[in-house]
Amino acid sequence: MGQKALRIQLLILDVDGVLTGGEIILGSQGIELKAFNTRDGMAIAMARQAGLRVAIITGRVSEAVAVRASELGVKDLFQGRMDKMEAYESLLKRYQLTDQQVAFVGDDLLDLPIMKRAGLKVAVANASGELKAMADYVTLASGGQGAVREVVELLLGWKDRGKSVPIE
Amino acid sequence: MGQKALRIQLLILDVDGVLTGGEIILGSQGIELKAFNTRDGMAIAMARQAGLRVAIITGRVSEAVAVRASELGVKDLFQGRMDKMEAYESLLKRYQLTDQQVAFVGDDLLDLPIMKRAGLKVAVANASGELKAMADYVTLASGGQGAVREVVELLLGWKDRGKSVPIE
Amino acid sequence: MGQKALRIQLLILDVDGVLTGGEIILGSQGIELKAFNTRDGMAIAMARQAGLRVAIITGRVSEAVAVRASELGVKDLFQGRMDKMEAYESLLKRYQLTDQQVAFVGDDLLDLPIMKRAGLKVAVANASGELKAMADYVTLASGGQGAVREVVELLLGWKDRGKSVPIE
Amino acid sequence: MGQKALRIQLLILDVDGVLTGGEIILGSQGIELKAFNTRDGMAIAMARQAGLRVAIITGRVSEAVAVRASELGVKDLFQGRMDKMEAYESLLKRYQLTDQQVAFVGDDLLDLPIMKRAGLKVAVANASGELKAMADYVTLASGGQGAVREVVELLLGWKDRGKSVPIE
Repeated sequence: MGQKALRIQLLILDVDGVLTGGEIILGSQGIELKAFNTRDGMAIAMARQAGLRVAIITGRVSEAVAVRASELGVKDLFQGRMDKMEAYESLLKRYQLTDQQVAFVGDDLLDLPIMKRAGLKVAVANASGELKAMADYVTLASGGQGAVREVVELLLGWKDRGKSVPIE
Repeated sequence: MGQKALRIQLLILDVDGVLTGGEIILGSQGIELKAFNTRDGMAIAMARQAGLRVAIITGRVSEAVAVRASELGVKDLFQGRMDKMEAYESLLKRYQLTDQQVAFVGDDLLDLPIMKRAGLKVAVANASGELKAMADYVTLASGGQGAVREVVELLLGWKDRGKSVPIE
Repeated sequence: MGQKALRIQLLILDVDGVLTGGEIILGSQGIELKAFNTRDGMAIAMARQAGLRVAIITGRVSEAVAVRASELGVKDLFQGRMDKMEAYESLLKRYQLTDQQVAFVGDDLLDLPIMKRAGLKVAVANASGELKAMADYVTLASGGQGAVREVVELLLGWKDRGKSVPIE
Repeated sequence: MGQKALRIQLLILDVDGVLTGGEIILGSQGIELKAFNTRDGMAIAMARQAGLRVAIITGRVSEAVAVRASELGVKDLFQGRMDKMEAYESLLKRYQLTDQQVAFVGDDLLDLPIMKRAGLKVAVANASGELKAMADYVTLASGGQGAVREVVELLLGWKDRGKSVPIE
């Protein structure tokens, strides 16, 4: 994963099961809650500070995700995308990136098309077997328990090492 | 369980403890929240796409379940059924099914009457001892942690194998 | 614990850490949520059906507890009792019971005075060391994870055996 | 940690990941929930009763924290402090304390500056590696699971022993 990580310029995250533990918390009066992780939030700030772009693509639509993305300064937020490839393609075009420059973190079948394309494929510990089988890296942490933090720390660590050492 | 699974046409699910971890989350102003699992949701979509009917029968009444069932396209939703057999019977009549064509996933004593009847009896990992003792299969996952996903993957796997291999 | 259990006529439960996992879930606009356990609820119904009285004494005040107690038919609900002994004494007087006829389930220091008095003292798995040291029984399950269910099943089991076997 | 604990007069706590498990629970209509721990609450009451001052410094702003701090009688509450040192300095000045008289419990990078200064440095079990590496003590419990209770019990235990034994 190290070599691949050096090229990454865009980190794309799924929401349910990746930035959360996969709980869909519903109530009356249209209430929907999501439980994000404070240390994942810090990781996204670290990633952006290090010059990585961060984007979110999710199949559901919820106000909670919009609030969290805004808090974290993530402007590339795509909600309600059962077909996630359209959002993926538009991100590559917007930032003129190739697949090899994209890392993706997913957990379930809707994420398969992006997993097939992204240069660095990450499945969370609680991902479905299909995603894990295809992943370059499976996180030790589950979604909502710091999986995104883990990915960002690895990415930035490799990038740091990549700067100081002649690689390739 | 494999042979029994081939005949299943209807999958009936309990809610609290099966589609959730069993938390009854209450608050002021009549708030009741339920925490469903995103991968269970995907499983229900997979099951329906594969031609399985999916129904929900629950002892409680909550708006959260109605919202979730609607999201997942589950039209056969029976809430507030302390006596779950009436709902069970009406489902068999509606779809002209026999007990052998029904799989049921439950966790507690109110589920015993249906467990006795359903052709394929599943208890979740967190089910009471009485249900586990009677079950054809006890899930490895607890309710709300992917127990329904586990059941659906087994059902569809067996069905797939059943198609390609001459059985019985 | 078996011998003591035969005499029990009243089961007194703490809330936070016993009927819940100890989470105090707060929000804006005065929101307070509590996460009860569906199988504990069934246990309280079983206990009442078997002729046991069930009471709740808690140091906090929340609408969630009032709603849950009402659902479960628990009329002896004492909220906002930092000094829990007054409620305890009033219960004994109301039902003309002695300490030996009372089982109590607690988790923390505010519960110590009742623990000292109750005939059958139960601490949950997540209780503080002081309560565990004094307990006749420490549950295997944590609060909110079925600790109350565990206590009720033990109580009813012993009572059942007590009926059929001549004891003492 | 024992010797250092004897001098402590002020206990400073982070919120997300320390007084909670690190979940940032968001919803529509500006809802933000936090799940505190009932036994941590009792610990803060114990600490204050034993003469320890307790303060809270957090990077986020939420009504839930204000409500909880008020319940627990914690008047020194600093919210929205991405730079936590200013709050730290003002506490030392307000109570005329030195670094050696302060214990701090943190979990993530924003806590590093205070960790470097505080006389007794505590990282929770779920803290980032940087904080753990610098800590005098790493709690066995995770944030929201009794980490603060654990710290307070240790502090008060050492203080008790310190009173009865002649220690330099």
